[in-house]
Amino acid sequence: MGQGLGYLSGPARLAGPDEGISREELALATRNHGLPLEALRYDVTPPGLHYVLTHYDIPYADDGWRLTVGGRVRRPLRVTPADLAAFPAVTTRVTMECAGNGRALLTPRPVSQPWLVEAVGTAEWTGVPLRVLLDEAGAAADAVDVVFTGADHGVERGVEQDYQRALPLDVALGRDPEVLVAYAMNGAPLPPQHGCPLRLVVPGWYGMAHVKWLRDITVSDAPFTGFQHTVAYRLRQEPDDEGEPVTRIAPRALLVPPGFPDFMSRTRVVRPGPVRLEGRAWSGRAPLTGVEVSTDGGATWDPAVLDPPDPGGDSRWAWRRWHADWTAVPGHHVLAVRATDEEGDQPSGPLWNRGGFANNRVQRQPVLCLAAHDEPA
Amino acid sequence: MGQGLGYLSGPARLAGPDEGISREELALATRNHGLPLEALRYDVTPPGLHYVLTHYDIPYADDGWRLTVGGRVRRPLRVTPADLAAFPAVTTRVTMECAGNGRALLTPRPVSQPWLVEAVGTAEWTGVPLRVLLDEAGAAADAVDVVFTGADHGVERGVEQDYQRALPLDVALGRDPEVLVAYAMNGAPLPPQHGCPLRLVVPGWYGMAHVKWLRDITVSDAPFTGFQHTVAYRLRQEPDDEGEPVTRIAPRALLVPPGFPDFMSRTRVVRPGPVRLEGRAWSGRAPLTGVEVSTDGGATWDPAVLDPPDPGGDSRWAWRRWHADWTAVPGHHVLAVRATDEEGDQPSGPLWNRGGFANNRVQRQPVLCLAAHDEPA
Repeated sequence: MGQGLGYLSGPARLAGPDEGISREELALATRNHGLPLEALRYDVTPPGLHYVLTHYDIPYADDGWRLTVGGRVRRPLRVTPADLAAFPAVTTRVTMECAGNGRALLTPRPVSQPWLVEAVGTAEWTGVPLRVLLDEAGAAADAVDVVFTGADHGVERGVEQDYQRALPLDVALGRDPEVLVAYAMNGAPLPPQHGCPLRLVVPGWYGMAHVKWLRDITVSDAPFTGFQHTVAYRLRQEPDDEGEPVTRIAPRALLVPPGFPDFMSRTRVVRPGPVRLEGRAWSGRAPLTGVEVSTDGGATWDPAVLDPPDPGGDSRWAWRRWHADWTAVPGHHVLAVRATDEEGDQPSGPLWNRGGFANNRVQRQPVLCLAAHDEPA
Repeated sequence: MGQGLGYLSGPARLAGPDEGISREELALATRNHGLPLEALRYDVTPPGLHYVLTHYDIPYADDGWRLTVGGRVRRPLRVTPADLAAFPAVTTRVTMECAGNGRALLTPRPVSQPWLVEAVGTAEWTGVPLRVLLDEAGAAADAVDVVFTGADHGVERGVEQDYQRALPLDVALGRDPEVLVAYAMNGAPLPPQHGCPLRLVVPGWYGMAHVKWLRDITVSDAPFTGFQHTVAYRLRQEPDDEGEPVTRIAPRALLVPPGFPDFMSRTRVVRPGPVRLEGRAWSGRAPLTGVEVSTDGGATWDPAVLDPPDPGGDSRWAWRRWHADWTAVPGHHVLAVRATDEEGDQPSGPLWNRGGFANNRVQRQPVLCLAAHDEPA
């Protein structure tokens, strides 16, 4: 089969020095979408604005959906989404980010879904803790990994596959974060593009772990070696490196672009005077410790006011709002914002790996402040 | 002001012969998004899958929203969305398509939002007929155009503006199509990206006419000459042409891509044997008369089965399902589908204008049919 599929499914590659975004990358960018940055204003991202990345097709779910829990368990399960809704429900507010966020800003650019900085969103996910389901099924004492299989099917780098990811048993059974098998997003059934009818939610981890269209959970006594663990989603400098797995979300802050945009360049326009800068910051790696803002392209930094975590419910894994005040003067400016967590801060300089993963390099936002007399007609 | 804004907001341009998609085009493609083509399966597009194009930012609507109706009227109105909900409601199923759909497939490529073929969606819009509001306000006898102003504000080609479009009075007052001031989409309040709390819906017209975040309707005794009519959204061969305005949707058919995809190339993979081909077809110009399918890249065509318009409610302006059966044999194939309406069919050859509008050239979908022995591992 490799020969047939090899024709259409080449190896991973890096763009050439002057190579613009290709037709293939564009086809992914028109299907998938980021969070329009002005939507950072919402505590919880409204449906349709949360980022979406689908490896293959969005499956067409029908009433016959069943989730199986098997492998190294004493009591295999086969349940409907309605069966899951009969368990005590847990709702958690979670910021999710694509592991490839920032990829298209790398040089050389890894050719894949070409995200800039917008592959993020925050939702309230409702479901059953995974540990409750694994307890119900009775995971065996020799269990090592828990493997999650989605209904999305396709080819990647010549390998035909269902989308599959795994978690180590201790993460799968953990309470902080508590992994969910979710059936609702923001209080409504999951939309098709977010995994209808069931998906995994792994708070603090990049999006690849949150398996959508979940149809099987298999407890395994051996480490999982599937494509999405051993080929994709590893941090490598060279193609033959073993590489480190991509896991938790590195810290990042983003800005609600101030003023108003130019349609084509997306440069922002403001008028002289006070401008409230605001945005969101998050980390899945360690608790946030602060956010800083620069209005001179990163030459100097001032602390922003970082709101406490939302007091309502469990929001340790959700972004936090920050704000800072700026007095704009006429001319060209570059705004920047960076988050720091207990393990460090966002890099200002190059950060590169062949897959283009976890690039949390500081966002730079050009702003033109008009002269005071440049009033609209 | 032009000098300041000219710096960030250049004139329209065409991409060079070997120019890939630029960073600016990519920034638009990651914000806006198309319909993932597998979602052509749904009669009504689920929220979040319908295409979205926003010229500037998505405004942040609050409870103070008011719609004004003024200009050449005897009784100016100032109403809340709740006031509109007190009028008798009309619900219409409408297929909406961006005027720029197909732009990125043109050579040379006009540099703007780089759509391939996916800028489409179908929703059930609920609202008040515009003619009812204009009747309430009492449009004057000398009225010529009705101008619609959205709350989205930005710069385009150096011109600072609120997004504004107009309709001739006879279209604004028409009953076929009946223009709506809509406050609900698929039975729920409008999502932010679709115009919350109010938008115009002009069945059969390209998306630029369906003004989102509607805050003012002004009846005018002179033809409207705003930017989005006289600079943008005209069919021109040369920059100085006066050009024809972009209005109604040209016919198009699209295919649900069969089988499963390769992640990167989006080429489809099927196995030998019967394959059901299906999709949707629509025209805002004239009633559809047929759909044809080609499995040899357009060399030969066979008629598809075109479903009648949905019998429930008013769906004259919604897409129609079609299907055809294909027996796939091993090898490489290019599928194509074309719609015909009472005024003609979709072009297979080049179709070009400087804005990249209304490019309804026939979709081509490469498919690899594996050999029978290429079974998955």
